[in-house]
Amino acid sequence: MYGLIGSARARTGRRDETVAILLENMDSTPGRLSDVVAEGPGNPDVVWITEGRDSAGRYRASLALPAVRGAIARGKPLIAAFGQHTETRPVGGHGLAPAA
Amino acid sequence: MYGLIGSARARTGRRDETVAILLENMDSTPGRLSDVVAEGPGNPDVVWITEGRDSAGRYRASLALPAVRGAIARGKPLIAAFGQHTETRPVGGHGLAPAA
Repeated sequence: MYGLIGSARARTGRRDETVAILLENMDSTPGRLSDVVAEGPGNPDVVWITEGRDSAGRYRASLALPAVRGAIARGKPLIAAFGQHTETRPVGGHGLAPAA
Repeated sequence: MYGLIGSARARTGRRDETVAILLENMDSTPGRLSDVVAEGPGNPDVVWITEGRDSAGRYRASLALPAVRGAIARGKPLIAAFGQHTETRPVGGHGLAPAA
């Protein structure tokens, strides 16, 4: 399995729009096992994304899907800065279930 | 919802035991919505835990459960150092489902 822990700072006042875009395609992306979008309680602009996929290859392939490319194109202008980008190797847990 | 992104460094050679303990009680802890245990690919001792619970109160209450206290007591000696401890506020995603 392939995991990613990432954070980003949305432009001021644009977090809700950013979160809405991140929550798109949740149940239609092949290889997605787990995906949690969260706010950073201490900062009104910070978003956290923790993802679990069945493989790194399927994760990268998903970035080329039209729906995902469209979401990235609409989301990128809302981002002021990217923060943490940690790749992991999930080994188990609760809530790891194929989305599509 | 309440989320936690954490990492720890197991004592040399003790990561597998640490992961096994972390994977205990996955489907029996009230309030657990998502929980992924992962290895840090770059370091043979690093473990990542990304948790999603229905509330901070239920998370803290779960730490007092006998099974969880037992796991913590067995796991703590295996840990060389704790790393990241980021609290988040999950707002949605895939794989957020009540465990118990």
